[in-house]
Amino acid sequence: MSSKTSILLQAFTGTNKTVPVWFMRQAGRYLPAYRKIKEKHRLEEMFGNPDLAAKITCLPLKSLEVDALILFADILTLPSRMGFKITFSDQLGPVIASPIQKESDLKKIHNFDNLDSVSQTIHKIKQQIPDHLPLIGFAGAPFTVLCYLIEGGSSIHFNKTFRFLYTKPSSFHKMMTILTENTIRYLKLQQQAGIQVFQLFDTWAGILKASDYQNFILPYVQKIFTQVKLPSIYYLRGSQHLLALMEKSEAHFLSLCHEVVLGQDPILEKTRLGVQGNLFNLLLYADKRMLKQELQKVLQGARHHQKYIFNLSHGVLPDTSVEKLKFLIEQVHQFPWTNSA
Amino acid sequence: MSSKTSILLQAFTGTNKTVPVWFMRQAGRYLPAYRKIKEKHRLEEMFGNPDLAAKITCLPLKSLEVDALILFADILTLPSRMGFKITFSDQLGPVIASPIQKESDLKKIHNFDNLDSVSQTIHKIKQQIPDHLPLIGFAGAPFTVLCYLIEGGSSIHFNKTFRFLYTKPSSFHKMMTILTENTIRYLKLQQQAGIQVFQLFDTWAGILKASDYQNFILPYVQKIFTQVKLPSIYYLRGSQHLLALMEKSEAHFLSLCHEVVLGQDPILEKTRLGVQGNLFNLLLYADKRMLKQELQKVLQGARHHQKYIFNLSHGVLPDTSVEKLKFLIEQVHQFPWTNSA
Repeated sequence: MSSKTSILLQAFTGTNKTVPVWFMRQAGRYLPAYRKIKEKHRLEEMFGNPDLAAKITCLPLKSLEVDALILFADILTLPSRMGFKITFSDQLGPVIASPIQKESDLKKIHNFDNLDSVSQTIHKIKQQIPDHLPLIGFAGAPFTVLCYLIEGGSSIHFNKTFRFLYTKPSSFHKMMTILTENTIRYLKLQQQAGIQVFQLFDTWAGILKASDYQNFILPYVQKIFTQVKLPSIYYLRGSQHLLALMEKSEAHFLSLCHEVVLGQDPILEKTRLGVQGNLFNLLLYADKRMLKQELQKVLQGARHHQKYIFNLSHGVLPDTSVEKLKFLIEQVHQFPWTNSA
Repeated sequence: MSSKTSILLQAFTGTNKTVPVWFMRQAGRYLPAYRKIKEKHRLEEMFGNPDLAAKITCLPLKSLEVDALILFADILTLPSRMGFKITFSDQLGPVIASPIQKESDLKKIHNFDNLDSVSQTIHKIKQQIPDHLPLIGFAGAPFTVLCYLIEGGSSIHFNKTFRFLYTKPSSFHKMMTILTENTIRYLKLQQQAGIQVFQLFDTWAGILKASDYQNFILPYVQKIFTQVKLPSIYYLRGSQHLLALMEKSEAHFLSLCHEVVLGQDPILEKTRLGVQGNLFNLLLYADKRMLKQELQKVLQGARHHQKYIFNLSHGVLPDTSVEKLKFLIEQVHQFPWTNSA
């Protein structure tokens, strides 16, 4: 590392003097340069081609002073190398050609064969960016990936997943075990290639009630955070009812959804974990005056925590204005960071 | 009323000795008799034809000993008589032909012209059912209805709704005002026709953070519960982060989603409101042994409340077994109801 230090990495020890910022989906459709690339290439190609994926990862640097980059890949990149044929549709999102439907389909889940393209992408990114700018790697959490593999794509009620979970619990555990092992190997591969932090995306786990989360998800997530020895962030959408359990995940940071009010949550008040988030991503539709007000509420609430990274509640939406993201970053960086924790 | 008393109505005063049960979507696709009707008629016809709607409302009585019936209608029945052309698709759900897109579209929202078919449906239902069996009326809450009218149908992120809310807050308030007035008139019409209880479905309000809920939704909901003088239930999906505010809604009962653990929630512990719910609807996929265990947890938790009605967390799903619903009702009715509140 150069003499310039990374405020994102400092945040993991609580030694930063400025609040670090990055955005989920910061390399995405809201950027004109991204849209140009997407006109010429299919998503499968954008994820699988190291030159292209590295280029896309670095796109935000041209317009935004973010404090970290996040690897351009998909949470289904891993299962796409575990025997599943996955395509991406603009309307439907990911589509899994032959999803898991019955107990015997368990044998469809292999260990992953080859993810060299991801290692190569990471190498290429590292060549292009300054030493002090950290690269965040990531993986989908086993439950969230399994939801896609069982539903065959996105879902509203996740009926098939719950039917499997409640009628074949031991097979469900077996699938979680295989996915967990693969996720650990995948994250270690990313670590070897050069990522400095990783985020685990458990997007869908918020659909579970607490007791099911505790039985079916938490032990696997704990295993990942214990075995992958890197600064870590755990993201879960719709997380408020699970905070007490997420606190036991062994992650270093929890990334929170907009339902949680920073500085007012009784469970978070007691945690020693770092907190990431949680400005509601749709607030970027508001004008700058309102945006600033809402941002101040989040930042003031964040002062209750010793370790804090600014982010949105969820990914940047395609119709978000670059100008407003710039404004947010400026405001966050100007905020006098003296936490009271 | 006959000498037989309704345990559902007793629950509103906490004088019942048995826990009452009904299910959201109890007149729905899981019933073979419903599916037969649906083969021959479009949904618009089923909602709009009083003979058919009354018949469908009463269908559950043939197989289930539920303690109340709920009017067969849609939460978009009201706006369909307020100038919006609404059709129902099996794949997409409701489709609004020309949704609200800009400020000037405000003039599209009229007062409703004629909902006689709903009054007639209620009259016909009352003729067919025993006096002691209460009929629950309902309406969609203004925000939830407005979500459909702005999005043009169902949505995942509700981008258009939030864009409207954050960029045109005063127009948003105007639309909420008109919808609230219409909802009150609609519920009073149902009251005059003979419903004894009503439930307000605020299905989508859980997408809001607490401060937005407080500014944009709560005052309107309070107005409805204050002005419609009938025993009332307030339903909201994904409600855990809003419970403290929902508690101020002026409803008599709160219907809770599966994220809330009865008997363990600090806000509910203090409320004097009745509680309805909240067995996770997808648990009906589990076998009877597991179903019974989970039901017992819900019922034991419910003992912390003086007023309680059993229901699911959400509507009965189309692939739910009638047999298991029967089993649930038996178990609930056998449960020794001595609350500790």
